[in-house]
Amino acid sequence: MESNVSNFNNFIFNSHHGDGLEMGPIEIHKVSTPPHQSTLVKFKNRLKETFFPDDPLRQFKGQSLKQKWILGAQYFFPILQWGPNYSLNLLKSDIISGLTIASLAIPQGISYANLANLPPIIGLYSSFVPPLIYAALGSSRDLAVGPVSIASLVLGSMLRQEVSPTEDPILFLQLGLTTTFFAGVFQASLGFLRLGFIIDFMSRATLLGFMAGAAIIVSLQQLKGLLGITHFTNQMGIVAVLTSVFHTTNEWSWQTILMGVCFLVFLLATRHVSMKRPKLFWVSAGAPLFCVILATAFTFAFKAKNHGISVIGKLEKGLNPPSYNMLQFGSKYLGLTIKTGIITGVLSLTEGIAVGRTFAALKNYQVDGNKEMIAIGIMNAVGSTTSCYVTTGAFSRSAVNNQAGCKTAASNIIMAVTVMVTLLFLMPLFQYTPNVVLGAIIVTAVVGLIDIPSALQIWKVDKYDFLVMLCAFFGVLFISVQNGLAIAVGISILKILLQVTRPKTVILGKIPGTDIYRNLFQYKEAVSIPGFLIIGIEAPINFANTTYLKERITRWVEDFEMEEASKTESNLKFAVLDLSSVSAIDTNGISFFKDLRFLLEKKGLELILVNPIGEVMEKLQRAAETQTLLRPEGLFLTVGEAVAFLLSTIKNPVANNV
Amino acid sequence: MESNVSNFNNFIFNSHHGDGLEMGPIEIHKVSTPPHQSTLVKFKNRLKETFFPDDPLRQFKGQSLKQKWILGAQYFFPILQWGPNYSLNLLKSDIISGLTIASLAIPQGISYANLANLPPIIGLYSSFVPPLIYAALGSSRDLAVGPVSIASLVLGSMLRQEVSPTEDPILFLQLGLTTTFFAGVFQASLGFLRLGFIIDFMSRATLLGFMAGAAIIVSLQQLKGLLGITHFTNQMGIVAVLTSVFHTTNEWSWQTILMGVCFLVFLLATRHVSMKRPKLFWVSAGAPLFCVILATAFTFAFKAKNHGISVIGKLEKGLNPPSYNMLQFGSKYLGLTIKTGIITGVLSLTEGIAVGRTFAALKNYQVDGNKEMIAIGIMNAVGSTTSCYVTTGAFSRSAVNNQAGCKTAASNIIMAVTVMVTLLFLMPLFQYTPNVVLGAIIVTAVVGLIDIPSALQIWKVDKYDFLVMLCAFFGVLFISVQNGLAIAVGISILKILLQVTRPKTVILGKIPGTDIYRNLFQYKEAVSIPGFLIIGIEAPINFANTTYLKERITRWVEDFEMEEASKTESNLKFAVLDLSSVSAIDTNGISFFKDLRFLLEKKGLELILVNPIGEVMEKLQRAAETQTLLRPEGLFLTVGEAVAFLLSTIKNPVANNV
Repeated sequence: MESNVSNFNNFIFNSHHGDGLEMGPIEIHKVSTPPHQSTLVKFKNRLKETFFPDDPLRQFKGQSLKQKWILGAQYFFPILQWGPNYSLNLLKSDIISGLTIASLAIPQGISYANLANLPPIIGLYSSFVPPLIYAALGSSRDLAVGPVSIASLVLGSMLRQEVSPTEDPILFLQLGLTTTFFAGVFQASLGFLRLGFIIDFMSRATLLGFMAGAAIIVSLQQLKGLLGITHFTNQMGIVAVLTSVFHTTNEWSWQTILMGVCFLVFLLATRHVSMKRPKLFWVSAGAPLFCVILATAFTFAFKAKNHGISVIGKLEKGLNPPSYNMLQFGSKYLGLTIKTGIITGVLSLTEGIAVGRTFAALKNYQVDGNKEMIAIGIMNAVGSTTSCYVTTGAFSRSAVNNQAGCKTAASNIIMAVTVMVTLLFLMPLFQYTPNVVLGAIIVTAVVGLIDIPSALQIWKVDKYDFLVMLCAFFGVLFISVQNGLAIAVGISILKILLQVTRPKTVILGKIPGTDIYRNLFQYKEAVSIPGFLIIGIEAPINFANTTYLKERITRWVEDFEMEEASKTESNLKFAVLDLSSVSAIDTNGISFFKDLRFLLEKKGLELILVNPIGEVMEKLQRAAETQTLLRPEGLFLTVGEAVAFLLSTIKNPVANNV
Repeated sequence: MESNVSNFNNFIFNSHHGDGLEMGPIEIHKVSTPPHQSTLVKFKNRLKETFFPDDPLRQFKGQSLKQKWILGAQYFFPILQWGPNYSLNLLKSDIISGLTIASLAIPQGISYANLANLPPIIGLYSSFVPPLIYAALGSSRDLAVGPVSIASLVLGSMLRQEVSPTEDPILFLQLGLTTTFFAGVFQASLGFLRLGFIIDFMSRATLLGFMAGAAIIVSLQQLKGLLGITHFTNQMGIVAVLTSVFHTTNEWSWQTILMGVCFLVFLLATRHVSMKRPKLFWVSAGAPLFCVILATAFTFAFKAKNHGISVIGKLEKGLNPPSYNMLQFGSKYLGLTIKTGIITGVLSLTEGIAVGRTFAALKNYQVDGNKEMIAIGIMNAVGSTTSCYVTTGAFSRSAVNNQAGCKTAASNIIMAVTVMVTLLFLMPLFQYTPNVVLGAIIVTAVVGLIDIPSALQIWKVDKYDFLVMLCAFFGVLFISVQNGLAIAVGISILKILLQVTRPKTVILGKIPGTDIYRNLFQYKEAVSIPGFLIIGIEAPINFANTTYLKERITRWVEDFEMEEASKTESNLKFAVLDLSSVSAIDTNGISFFKDLRFLLEKKGLELILVNPIGEVMEKLQRAAETQTLLRPEGLFLTVGEAVAFLLSTIKNPVANNV
């Protein structure tokens, strides 16, 4: 890489300004073409960059066969990596954090299952099997696995469009499990096919808007529990819910409302305390379980059930029953479950991967995105056969896990064991747990999804991103959860396309006393050179923008000529295109240069190209083999050299006829 | 623009390297932020560049009100521009070219109507009204307006999927006219809404593949006429047609085949002559009419009709009957006609605009894309009420028009008048015209759409474009005309997205004896600087690629450290990101810098940014107001200055603590 050899390629624009030819003080350097690579090699490199940007096989290089096997096994089962070095000290930390997240996982599991319109116990089942699988397969040390609010909301709302969870609860559960199966298969496939970058298409702005909208939708759904309404709407939209709430004021129960407000205030207060003092994380972590216990005891003691406070009711004891026979592949709802599976799969992956990456960066270890997808996917696919619905790494619980000092994925095992004990022995205790406390827990959990400071930051930095955020937010509120998301993603992609369709072109000028040329608009001190129009193009040149670029450059030339017409000394002779920022070109782009040269020649201008980079240079050269694309003298390495050389030819016109 | 004032903005990265601070021989220049513009101004500029890149109102600036009215009228009716200066000399040229294209338009009109499964006379009607409208509204001087093969094929094949033209010819005609209406409305709307760039999304490669595939499909359809088959398949696919052809060998008529082969050979020969010698353009221009006359006379003289040669049959005399009552807006086929209208509308626009631009560039006049769309759109919408189907500027006929020396759109008027005379007086003559000669005319016309040299050129220059072309070609042949097109457009857009998702990152080195830094891979003479890793990013940084970029840069750093580990003298201190080619950034990109800096610091590396351009600089600055994004010394105008300055701080560590 560091050779100093001047092996100039035998280059077609075989010009008179050869190897470092010097014209008086002007030194001219040649534009090189990258060394030749066969199409196959390029294709291989392209594939590698597209699908294996993290080069996962690097660690296998130069290892013995046995070592490769061990590394391979550790690659697929990270537990083999940290397991053998596990110590009592680590275990102590993991027990503390595991118990802490269990105390959160039990009430949240029941609540989120409620949100997804599934039986509450499914939420507990989902906090038992998936964490165990993740502990063996996952590479994050901080992820706390279990049901999450967003995926629960989307699963519930999408399935509810076609099946009623109250009228046909068994079918609804079957569809929920089938959806989970498809979500898992889809997630694992993304990982296996190395298509993980699909989740990158949800930008920060999209997610912020989406999560805030979803938080409001989720909170509105909790009005059912918090107000004690029995006849609640089946719809999700803000309008439908509020209409339903105010049409059923006669159903509101003051006892429920009082109890709900008390718990909500308490939970929000503990949340506030923990946010102000991170060391007191256990205050908000323990609060939900504390509320559940308190509310259950209260309801039991005062027989509040008879005073209009609805309770969870009897839950069956015992571990997850197998549920592979519940998966529905032949029914008419197949399309619905696949679609719901893909959307909840993507959403829960996005959350899980983002959480994993955040904490990995904090603790300075690596999380492999594609591997995580496989782990989460397998966990969901297997989960769907053991009565679990969609799970992933939950942001709030993982944060608690981290703050509680978890060291390895073993904290998930501790949590699972705690949930197992609950399932085996403590289920009857939940019989008197009032629904209102679950509502308060959910609202407290999702309030954190509304991130106003970040929204303000986005407004400040990027107005278009803010628009994307608003679209996601209002789309979720007023259209539907999945369509709001789709609209925001669509607008994000539209922005990329618009940037390519309407690339920026800037006029460059010289910064006095240097050879540096920069945007005249950005650098007020830069000056333009009489007789030269120096244009920088800041995008790849391709089919989507060649027409625009031709029109835009023509307009620059005409504007410039009009401006110059008022002066006497100079007239425009050269249009210099700085191609430093043109990262790629296609066949339309090649024709663009031909057409532009033709257009400019009719106006008496010469087209000069500066610094075409690798791919662009290569394609220009290949195209030039069959057609005259450029004057040989029309290519320079820097704008400075181009201007210096061309100015010298104007002064010594003889030099031009070499 | 050309002021030389050093009005440096009061800049946040308020560093110690102030206005031209000199450290011994090292001169350091500051990175400027572009002058502040309000969001509204930026939004206006963005809108203008997106929708009015050609600045159509420029000519109105500074004109008197009366002059503005005149210019306005001329803008919408270009005939007012050239009409008043029309002269006898121009008329002479236009008559010659008008008659020449009429001699092509009459047989082609009948043939293409046949191809669209419409009554032959519709093709003649469509060569009468639309050219007159275009002559008043259009700004191209060379466009010869009338039915074209591709749009006819697509219209026929799409409608035929739901309605049979043989079983219900009246409904089929109604749907054809309704489709034409929607095509016109869609085209005119694209123009009015300044959305003309939508047609840019069909790249050259897509069009080449599509047209070649369509040419083959069209030619295969002509086997019906050329072989004299009566029971022909309704489908378009290559497999269905060939199966049908070889299952009906008993229907083949040797008289028809003989006649077809003779005319085909003759027509292809005249085409060859005209291509070899452009001056003999009239040979191929006149040949189709000559063939029609000869074939009609022959059939009439020898009563060949009775020998199994099928003829057009009786055609009604008279001009276009009104057909607004034929438009079907309430039927169940509304969706079909809208869809077909949009697709044929886009296809015919693409052809018309491309033809107009090609000849405008040759003769050095301007064709305004959006205005042309309005003209073509109105022509089709009005046409649909006067028994005309989709028309546009046909490539082959416009080429003949140009070669025949047309001067203005008046040649279209001459052609329309000739067609009018034909409609009024000569229709009975076509009664004996054999269908086989129409087939031969179509095949000869579409053979020109298969452009193998251009395909080879694409293979040479850009393999991905070649793939797009193949997809369009085989998609049209084996799937369907519209899906083949959709697949090719989809793949083209995917390429743009992939370029953004997986941007190129290159390692830069210094070209010896200069301050120029270039790609080490492209410039073999460039050398890397010990202790520095200089990375160029060649794409906007946004949500779709920040994850990738983080992984890729980490990999570069690790590779580099491994390489450096073998040497003793140096270890990596600085990661320099050259942002010259980063044309835009979003909020994910801002976080990217923060995360990257954090990642690199853990590895003991300092992140240095070089030359952020306008928008990027602005957003970095705004983000930096609320968070510490960079060390103040971490920003430079050029890589050369960054390296020189940082090397000096390593040598004089005291200077670092200013």
